Amino acid sequence: MRDFSESHAALALNTATLGHNVEGAGAGWSPERTIDACAERGIGGIVFWRPEIGSRAVEIGERVRRAGLKTVGLCRTPFLVGPLAPAGRQAVMDDFKASIDMAAALQTNVLTIVVGGVEPGTKGVTESLRLVADRVGEMAPYAEKHGVRLALEPLNPVYGGDRSCLTTVRDALDLCDRIDAANVGIAVDVYHVWWDTDLAYQLRRAGGRILGYHLCDWLASTTDVLLDRGMMGDGVADLRGLRRAVESSGYGGFCEVEVFSAGNWWKRDPGEVLDTMIERFRSVC
Amino acid sequence: MRDFSESHAALALNTATLGHNVEGAGAGWSPERTIDACAERGIGGIVFWRPEIGSRAVEIGERVRRAGLKTVGLCRTPFLVGPLAPAGRQAVMDDFKASIDMAAALQTNVLTIVVGGVEPGTKGVTESLRLVADRVGEMAPYAEKHGVRLALEPLNPVYGGDRSCLTTVRDALDLCDRIDAANVGIAVDVYHVWWDTDLAYQLRRAGGRILGYHLCDWLASTTDVLLDRGMMGDGVADLRGLRRAVESSGYGGFCEVEVFSAGNWWKRDPGEVLDTMIERFRSVC
Repeated sequence: MRDFSESHAALALNTATLGHNVEGAGAGWSPERTIDACAERGIGGIVFWRPEIGSRAVEIGERVRRAGLKTVGLCRTPFLVGPLAPAGRQAVMDDFKASIDMAAALQTNVLTIVVGGVEPGTKGVTESLRLVADRVGEMAPYAEKHGVRLALEPLNPVYGGDRSCLTTVRDALDLCDRIDAANVGIAVDVYHVWWDTDLAYQLRRAGGRILGYHLCDWLASTTDVLLDRGMMGDGVADLRGLRRAVESSGYGGFCEVEVFSAGNWWKRDPGEVLDTMIERFRSVC
Repeated sequence: MRDFSESHAALALNTATLGHNVEGAGAGWSPERTIDACAERGIGGIVFWRPEIGSRAVEIGERVRRAGLKTVGLCRTPFLVGPLAPAGRQAVMDDFKASIDMAAALQTNVLTIVVGGVEPGTKGVTESLRLVADRVGEMAPYAEKHGVRLALEPLNPVYGGDRSCLTTVRDALDLCDRIDAANVGIAVDVYHVWWDTDLAYQLRRAGGRILGYHLCDWLASTTDVLLDRGMMGDGVADLRGLRRAVESSGYGGFCEVEVFSAGNWWKRDPGEVLDTMIERFRSVC
């Protein structure tokens, strides 16, 4: 297991930690200002959300590289199934393709997929997961051609209805097996998997398929399951144990901090948030 | 798989469906009025919560039997671990014992255990589950002596921090294996397990250890993870598939409807709720 106590070069900022994924939330820093603030502090990578990139993907990707950082990933494809997906299969696939194009233009090689909830008119997750496999399988060659890997992210089961019928690392790896494309893997997020006693076993199956590891913490008495994530160390997740399991699979990539926190961290000065994130990364992750 | 289209004798009311588990919620019917309303409609069983029983357990249990119903269960022990458990081990065990005494006085043979969240000062669920096993194992002989079986209920992982470090049927059966007492089993609740693709496999392990099966539905876009459960048929759970898996293990007991619904069903006339519950039980469960 890597020792981060003296270095945070493997730390990446997901800009959601500064509120940039929600309109009107956070301090509203520009991508450039965020990039500079990360570079000044020696943070090694950055992950953007599509709305903040807009039509400037090439320019922002270049800016990241000039600052000596790496664009570690892009959030995210549209929901592929479920009640919140774009209306109709063609609309889903068109926006899926657009998200791949943006990732390619940024020159990041990981695009996160949050698959969406239970497809209207069906019950349980089986049929929805089958649709996800079909849609990801169909788009994987296009992503491959553009140098983009697709990271299926299982979400906490509380989102099973509307945001993600994919809820466990086990199911995510099963989907990868079914899709069987070299550029399709998974993202592991502490918030979503911290409770899962099957995790270490499943991660031994993962091999090189872990494309991202996301850090935050689960607050014992969380007040909102979307926007009340904890900073590392403030919750009940066994962060060291989780990273040990992830790294046992061979993962040696970035650790991406993604703290959605409307009531706490998004109200603070972004510089303070970044400094805290670095301190916690070195001490408790 | 049993056919319920012509009979609801296997249907039980958990009084939480009428709001009786939350002070000031629901219509506030007395146990007697609730018993009569169930009896009139041919509902076969009833499950109470401790606050509505108070010191009248013997009397209410007798009243249920006179009405031709069965007291199918009692909710519940105190949280045994975690931030919401009574302060200190002795207080936990005293209240655990009191809940067993109440179940025995009611002459119900199932007492539900919601185990509580992550024990303060620890990280992850491992240590907390170990404490749960110790405490249940210690109390199991006392419950056995009083004819009470203890049903460990795994809760949706969203409750992992404060209400239940026990989140899957897999973990619940592992706990049973560890405790190894004939009167300790599990309760399976649609709300908590509907998303779990490992469920059918796990239930084949359960054998006679399923002590309760709880019905409701998971609303696709739920607004509150505590008090916004759906009536059967209004959500995305595969109710037939779930019951098939439960019955494949050999379960032939009551199906207990437990719909926490502050914003919808608790605001309606209890008679309408009971009638709807019967209709849905016969048609979609």
